[in-house]
Amino acid sequence: MKRILAFVGDLYEDLELWYPKIRLQEAGHEVVLAGLEAGRTYHGKKGIPCRAQAAVSEVDPEAYDALLVPGGFMPDRLRREASVLQIVRRMDAAGRAIAFICHGGWILISAGILQGRRATSTRAIRDDMVNAGCLWSDEPLVIDGNLISSRNPGDLHHFALALVEHLQLA
Amino acid sequence: MKRILAFVGDLYEDLELWYPKIRLQEAGHEVVLAGLEAGRTYHGKKGIPCRAQAAVSEVDPEAYDALLVPGGFMPDRLRREASVLQIVRRMDAAGRAIAFICHGGWILISAGILQGRRATSTRAIRDDMVNAGCLWSDEPLVIDGNLISSRNPGDLHHFALALVEHLQLA
Repeated sequence: MKRILAFVGDLYEDLELWYPKIRLQEAGHEVVLAGLEAGRTYHGKKGIPCRAQAAVSEVDPEAYDALLVPGGFMPDRLRREASVLQIVRRMDAAGRAIAFICHGGWILISAGILQGRRATSTRAIRDDMVNAGCLWSDEPLVIDGNLISSRNPGDLHHFALALVEHLQLA
Repeated sequence: MKRILAFVGDLYEDLELWYPKIRLQEAGHEVVLAGLEAGRTYHGKKGIPCRAQAAVSEVDPEAYDALLVPGGFMPDRLRREASVLQIVRRMDAAGRAIAFICHGGWILISAGILQGRRATSTRAIRDDMVNAGCLWSDEPLVIDGNLISSRNPGDLHHFALALVEHLQLA
């Protein structure tokens, strides 16, 4: 069993959290939801509620095997938080899997870890990704070492499986 | 690759359609969404849209290996349609898997196929299930031959995996 940290906040993309979350649970893993405030319930773009179990400011990145970054407009808020960027940088430095989809790339841009690395995202933030030094391509799934990325909810069947397979080998 | 028919309509339970749908796609299968009107977009209880690819009145049950019946209040509408009940009866008679969750059991009650068979559902319709002759139990997953049932979205990791495994053996 592995432990996966997932970022949550208002206007997260509903299926981009819930499909990987339940899929990881199906594979026997534990997913812990972290938001700005522990115990608070956040709502997705479509309205599906999710309760943050932990506060990002109190998360110990060492306690997790992987990080899941859903899209929606949640990343626009969380990328402003130093604790969020610190979690991303430390998990990346430790070689832990970081799976991000759609607008999730914004958080990796602000963490400053995309220079020279291959990834994808929603087309909307392609220019932001490229300007951050990312080797961006328009594919359903891009894997570059510990970075796993997809474009949108239509890629979720590739995205979640790639994370599950990565955790089997890790 | 197997073909799975899924019932859709307004007020379907969002994750009870989308988690199994993407999970089946991940396993290499095709899911066809059927509603009262082909081409119409229906909205889940939380608002996630889905477009019916086929009309239930025109579905050929022989063309499908399994049936997925999500919950929400959609089943309250679809159980009134003779064509829906006919699909359920014919697929059951042919031994095809029928996976139903939450309020999905209403449709099986009206199809008259639950007498003496083991299943579960949301607690809300337990009495309806029992009155229809079902041997009901409060478990995350109940499998009785070709009938696969679960209680609510919290059981989805058991429910979808059971359907995927059933299709591997079928």
